[in-house]
Amino acid sequence: MSVADLQAREPRLEFDLARTGPGTPMGRFMRRFWMPVMRAEDLPKGEARPIRVMSEDFALYRGDSGVAQVIDYRCPHRGAQMHLGWVEADDIRCVYHGWKFDCAGQCIEQPAEEAGFARKMRIGTYPTREFMGLIFAYFGDGAPPPFPPYPMPVAEGLIENQAPPLVPCNYLQCFENSLDEVHVAFVHRIGGSHSGIYDLPEIAAEETDWGMIRYGRRGNEERISLHYMPNCTRVIVPPMAGLDGAGGWRELYLAFTPIDDENNMWFITNLVGVTGEAVAPYQQKRAQYLRRQAEAGSALDLAQEVRDGRVRFADIDHPDRVRVQDFAVQAGQGRIADRNNERLGRSDTAIILWRRILERELRAMQTGRAVKEWTPAPEEVVPTLGF
Amino acid sequence: MSVADLQAREPRLEFDLARTGPGTPMGRFMRRFWMPVMRAEDLPKGEARPIRVMSEDFALYRGDSGVAQVIDYRCPHRGAQMHLGWVEADDIRCVYHGWKFDCAGQCIEQPAEEAGFARKMRIGTYPTREFMGLIFAYFGDGAPPPFPPYPMPVAEGLIENQAPPLVPCNYLQCFENSLDEVHVAFVHRIGGSHSGIYDLPEIAAEETDWGMIRYGRRGNEERISLHYMPNCTRVIVPPMAGLDGAGGWRELYLAFTPIDDENNMWFITNLVGVTGEAVAPYQQKRAQYLRRQAEAGSALDLAQEVRDGRVRFADIDHPDRVRVQDFAVQAGQGRIADRNNERLGRSDTAIILWRRILERELRAMQTGRAVKEWTPAPEEVVPTLGF
Amino acid sequence: MSVADLQAREPRLEFDLARTGPGTPMGRFMRRFWMPVMRAEDLPKGEARPIRVMSEDFALYRGDSGVAQVIDYRCPHRGAQMHLGWVEADDIRCVYHGWKFDCAGQCIEQPAEEAGFARKMRIGTYPTREFMGLIFAYFGDGAPPPFPPYPMPVAEGLIENQAPPLVPCNYLQCFENSLDEVHVAFVHRIGGSHSGIYDLPEIAAEETDWGMIRYGRRGNEERISLHYMPNCTRVIVPPMAGLDGAGGWRELYLAFTPIDDENNMWFITNLVGVTGEAVAPYQQKRAQYLRRQAEAGSALDLAQEVRDGRVRFADIDHPDRVRVQDFAVQAGQGRIADRNNERLGRSDTAIILWRRILERELRAMQTGRAVKEWTPAPEEVVPTLGF
Repeated sequence: MSVADLQAREPRLEFDLARTGPGTPMGRFMRRFWMPVMRAEDLPKGEARPIRVMSEDFALYRGDSGVAQVIDYRCPHRGAQMHLGWVEADDIRCVYHGWKFDCAGQCIEQPAEEAGFARKMRIGTYPTREFMGLIFAYFGDGAPPPFPPYPMPVAEGLIENQAPPLVPCNYLQCFENSLDEVHVAFVHRIGGSHSGIYDLPEIAAEETDWGMIRYGRRGNEERISLHYMPNCTRVIVPPMAGLDGAGGWRELYLAFTPIDDENNMWFITNLVGVTGEAVAPYQQKRAQYLRRQAEAGSALDLAQEVRDGRVRFADIDHPDRVRVQDFAVQAGQGRIADRNNERLGRSDTAIILWRRILERELRAMQTGRAVKEWTPAPEEVVPTLGF
Repeated sequence: MSVADLQAREPRLEFDLARTGPGTPMGRFMRRFWMPVMRAEDLPKGEARPIRVMSEDFALYRGDSGVAQVIDYRCPHRGAQMHLGWVEADDIRCVYHGWKFDCAGQCIEQPAEEAGFARKMRIGTYPTREFMGLIFAYFGDGAPPPFPPYPMPVAEGLIENQAPPLVPCNYLQCFENSLDEVHVAFVHRIGGSHSGIYDLPEIAAEETDWGMIRYGRRGNEERISLHYMPNCTRVIVPPMAGLDGAGGWRELYLAFTPIDDENNMWFITNLVGVTGEAVAPYQQKRAQYLRRQAEAGSALDLAQEVRDGRVRFADIDHPDRVRVQDFAVQAGQGRIADRNNERLGRSDTAIILWRRILERELRAMQTGRAVKEWTPAPEEVVPTLGF
Repeated sequence: MSVADLQAREPRLEFDLARTGPGTPMGRFMRRFWMPVMRAEDLPKGEARPIRVMSEDFALYRGDSGVAQVIDYRCPHRGAQMHLGWVEADDIRCVYHGWKFDCAGQCIEQPAEEAGFARKMRIGTYPTREFMGLIFAYFGDGAPPPFPPYPMPVAEGLIENQAPPLVPCNYLQCFENSLDEVHVAFVHRIGGSHSGIYDLPEIAAEETDWGMIRYGRRGNEERISLHYMPNCTRVIVPPMAGLDGAGGWRELYLAFTPIDDENNMWFITNLVGVTGEAVAPYQQKRAQYLRRQAEAGSALDLAQEVRDGRVRFADIDHPDRVRVQDFAVQAGQGRIADRNNERLGRSDTAIILWRRILERELRAMQTGRAVKEWTPAPEEVVPTLGF
């Protein structure tokens, strides 16, 4: 597929690729994959939390065995929120009238009801797994796909998961930004941390069995980034401004989970290439950065001020400057970006190809034709330095 | 009606019992009763306030005679809010152009208009009464029903009205919670103030001329609670955590006034059984409690944090702990609870009967058949200790 | 047209005069005029801001030449907000991928695209002018009308533009309030600054080539105020409470720009009649007032507290007391006032005439008949003291 061919394409999309609620075409597609829903470190044993994924609510808890459990949001009795309840061993008891469900969803106790009623009652449950510090859940029909959905980094180092921000726009514009190497030279020009990747690449992209490879060509150099179906990008980028270079460039897995159509959560897993004696000084530097980050106030709030015209984009100053710049621009496209009034060009090659893949799959689902069986990505395909 | 019969019942409701706006079936039913709208102590002479009841706005003021007046929210001239105006004797003057209305709604002055125009102008007025420290209003057609709608407590003691919270959910799930004795053993388990009523009752319920009696049977003991049509429950319960037992168990009248379909206000009248020399030390203790309550911050905000998963239900610590627990669970059912996906059981007997009564009455109203003439409750029917 | 004739009129309006979004009758009418959009002092050279006018978003920037530019809100490429970009000379460059547009809207650079693509790309631009410290823009079809839309004050003095508040209601009820001399005697009774104009006038009004003249007759005295089509009122009024009379009565141009149907921005230009040696002490007094104003907190927030019944209208105490009173009453009519349930009288003569003019024009536009060609107002028609 030539660039000219891509550019000639009528940009009007056949499907709404942004909306992922139950029953929508894109929602059905996305529910065929594992979806990160929370950092493992944010769910201690014995605790429960409400979560929202693709416009549906659930409860997430972790029992004594340490396994995270995802169940329906509401008790089938009178609709109480299940995360208000008590975790007992690997079971959960509703706060309202004490109905207790095991982790397979079977009601096993109803203190104030007649015997026999409990066994007729079930609550929905959803498969979970953990990988690189994240809890994943599967919300589709039938058996979930292989796990993990993508390989660990091959290099040694520290795995860090940033506290996941809830970004006030649709997941797809954030994911598409991660396909878009050219934005770096403009959005992240101010502040310097990304100055190593300001030169403009020629973009190419190629579908694979597990997603898409993107190539950024600059003269003889070619940098590679990976895009795992349906919402995860793997790149190598510089550290946040506030780290002052500590840990150096790191491998990032950026997964964009739709919360609902107008919000998405960024799960960003870092492989920081420090080992052995370098770990302690790095951790000290990182602790300092986290203090500065906490003092600096919310990056999302600052991005909103920029969008409202109260702070200039050029004046963004924050330990997570790159993040604030990204939030401002991506959320600035609107709660749900209008893809039917875009004018795409050569630099949008990767975005165009991704949308074509999605549309082809949604069309196949809609017409009952065979959909592609995506496979886990092989370990040896890795990104190269440079976004 | 046997329990088996109740359980076998298809839970899908024929009427929407939650929505009480003008013209809705439940709205028409509710407008046949007196409705508490404000604490008497919150409306000094000479002042006016905006109120919202069953999705309609009104102005409430108290003139020199001391009688509370409810009138239309907006001036018929150009729609200014009447509560911004001046109370003059028992009349009210609009802030915008000085139109003055007497407490029967007749316009009696229009400073900048021609003579004769005023007498053609009226503003809507609504009957009011006061009882046990609350202002009641009647929003229905024709003459209001007898007043008071329910009797005073027979025991001697202090009447206290708690500052009425605006709870962010439909009134009916809060009222239904007050029919639900079993919730106490679970929702209020933590904190200890209700430990006297943790044992599980068998529930029975019986329609009366004025509403419903609910029975909680525990072995040979039977406790009685009263439910006055359409939205008031009378029970005997322990004091708030922050009172450290002061005043002992008290009789409560809990009236749930719909503000709109997604908000309701709790008017909770306490009869505290202290008399004579016991009053002064009790009042001192209560003043201390009110200070602690003010310092503790909003119980509603804390309940919201619990619902959002930021504070654990088990960690609720507040002088009004029982209230926070109730807010979290009841508002947690959603702004308007979904009654058509419930699975009711034996312990829901009272709720089931109440809904049946409502549906029978709404069906009668809809088909033009005779509706039940509810009578004021007799003084001698009283609740017994224990919720 | 006699007063009796006006009063006899059926108040139901044929057109929705409040809604000004694209394609609405009133929106089409309003887009035939210059509209103030920002204070000139709020847009330094080299900066860009987002603006919203009549339910549409735009970007506003000022390049090196000093000329303010209004362009489309979003980049045609991928929908980024243009005000996030960089102003370069008189051009603007999008923050997302560096597309650069000249101030005529032509795309002149696309760093990562093929040559030839840029010349096919344009961004919408809108004419602008500056006058008495305000930036005006024209959003209609074809050539804009003559500029300025109304004359400068004839008297010498200082031109001051108050920081424009975003008032949470439709523009028309605010503009209509400025036609309404009688409200002063009631809304502004408390606080004293307007005590010179508490006596009630008889109102008359007359259509002109440029809008409407309003007459307030009190015995032998007649005061004149001007209303420039479509949203600007010119009156003479006392200073804000916080100025303690400094500068004396001043000529005000009050322009109400619709932001969307539920919000409008007040552009209030003052001619303060101080000259020569009186300027310095006046400026000192004004600086003091501005400090007090900043300390007093938001006048809009205070007005909201009044509307919610938390602060009494009579207790409003603020350096801009008159403004708080106006905000409370006008926003209190609702986000969009309900004009079809009004009962208008003799004192509403000017409002009635204005609506008749608007309805006549909208009817002409709708049926394709000739609309009135409004002319700029002549310098010699000036308001007289007294609102």
